Amino acid sequence: MNNTILAIETSSNICGISLIKNGALIDSIDKKKSKQHAEVLPKLYQDLKIKTNFSLSNIDALAVSIGPGSFTGLRIGLSFTKGLAFSKNLPIIPISTMMALAYNARKFLPTLGIIHSHAKRVFYQKIRWSNVVPYSDGDIKVAEWDKFLNEIDQTENIFQLNCEKLDESSGFISTSLSSSSIGILANINYNELVIDQPYDLVPNYVSPFIIKKNK
Amino acid sequence: MNNTILAIETSSNICGISLIKNGALIDSIDKKKSKQHAEVLPKLYQDLKIKTNFSLSNIDALAVSIGPGSFTGLRIGLSFTKGLAFSKNLPIIPISTMMALAYNARKFLPTLGIIHSHAKRVFYQKIRWSNVVPYSDGDIKVAEWDKFLNEIDQTENIFQLNCEKLDESSGFISTSLSSSSIGILANINYNELVIDQPYDLVPNYVSPFIIKKNK
Repeated sequence: MNNTILAIETSSNICGISLIKNGALIDSIDKKKSKQHAEVLPKLYQDLKIKTNFSLSNIDALAVSIGPGSFTGLRIGLSFTKGLAFSKNLPIIPISTMMALAYNARKFLPTLGIIHSHAKRVFYQKIRWSNVVPYSDGDIKVAEWDKFLNEIDQTENIFQLNCEKLDESSGFISTSLSSSSIGILANINYNELVIDQPYDLVPNYVSPFIIKKNK
Repeated sequence: MNNTILAIETSSNICGISLIKNGALIDSIDKKKSKQHAEVLPKLYQDLKIKTNFSLSNIDALAVSIGPGSFTGLRIGLSFTKGLAFSKNLPIIPISTMMALAYNARKFLPTLGIIHSHAKRVFYQKIRWSNVVPYSDGDIKVAEWDKFLNEIDQTENIFQLNCEKLDESSGFISTSLSSSSIGILANINYNELVIDQPYDLVPNYVSPFIIKKNK
């Protein structure tokens, strides 16, 4: 696809923004920042603007990492993206955080991906490949780590994000997030995923959970 | 001041947006929504756009409730506001949530305001008045409710937000938030408060607190 995409990643401890033109990365800033995305993301936007001299008027679409991942991180990323989008009537392309991770591990063509959720809980999803592009194979599921290990075929090519602390010896492929893979997958899947009126777009939190009330 | 301001309030359980023109309220949508601001705010933006037919190109500045208040609520409101602002190079006018509350209780000319923080903790600040416009008199402070009650002069005109559960019998003036008061105070204080390059603007969380880490 020939288009220019601004891509945002805030689903975990990476806060990043990338400019993708005709499927190629122009420039990208990814910072490892735990829990400071609301402060960092606007700064990175400004830094990328200065570095690349992009104008939002020349952007065709905004891409955003849609989850699963950090509840607050996803909300901040999408809120900022919607703010940018609404002002220029730009479409948003939501990209599965799991597929972006798979894309970063593409040299292994993994068929299963795992993302740490919280405590001993993980998100996981089967993955299939077409011309070195990952696609989901079934829904994202949630499981407890120990139960999960018993249910899967550990000889598959499996990648994981932030699961080292659950099991240092698992030997699964370590991968990491980057805003550039959000933008590149958005370009590849533009027609299938683009949302022209993204008012109701919400993060893909996946895991139902209880919000603690203030007392 | 003659200008058009779009004002956003997400600091507590109210999610709201207002259009203010030359100091007068054109239209406003305020919804009571606990913890759903990321989903609700973009929808309200769109609803207000349809109701009033405003165009962001005709807006002079964005006003936002800057705190103290809910950590996530403030972050989402400011993230969305920055997204809108950056795309059109619009300035942001941060408005103290305490002053917006005081303004809503202006018929009593209160001299002390209290906002519930969490558990038994409250934010409080002295307030002075000039032509029925509230101004802060000293910093916002944080205290435990019981200690706070012993230290203040309870015969003052005092307003509170969400403190009923701490003490039903306090008799303090109940007040509530609205996005319109954010916009009206932004218009009144435009020159003093406007930030033309709001990249580094952060919420006024006030209370230092510990963020729980995922395990």
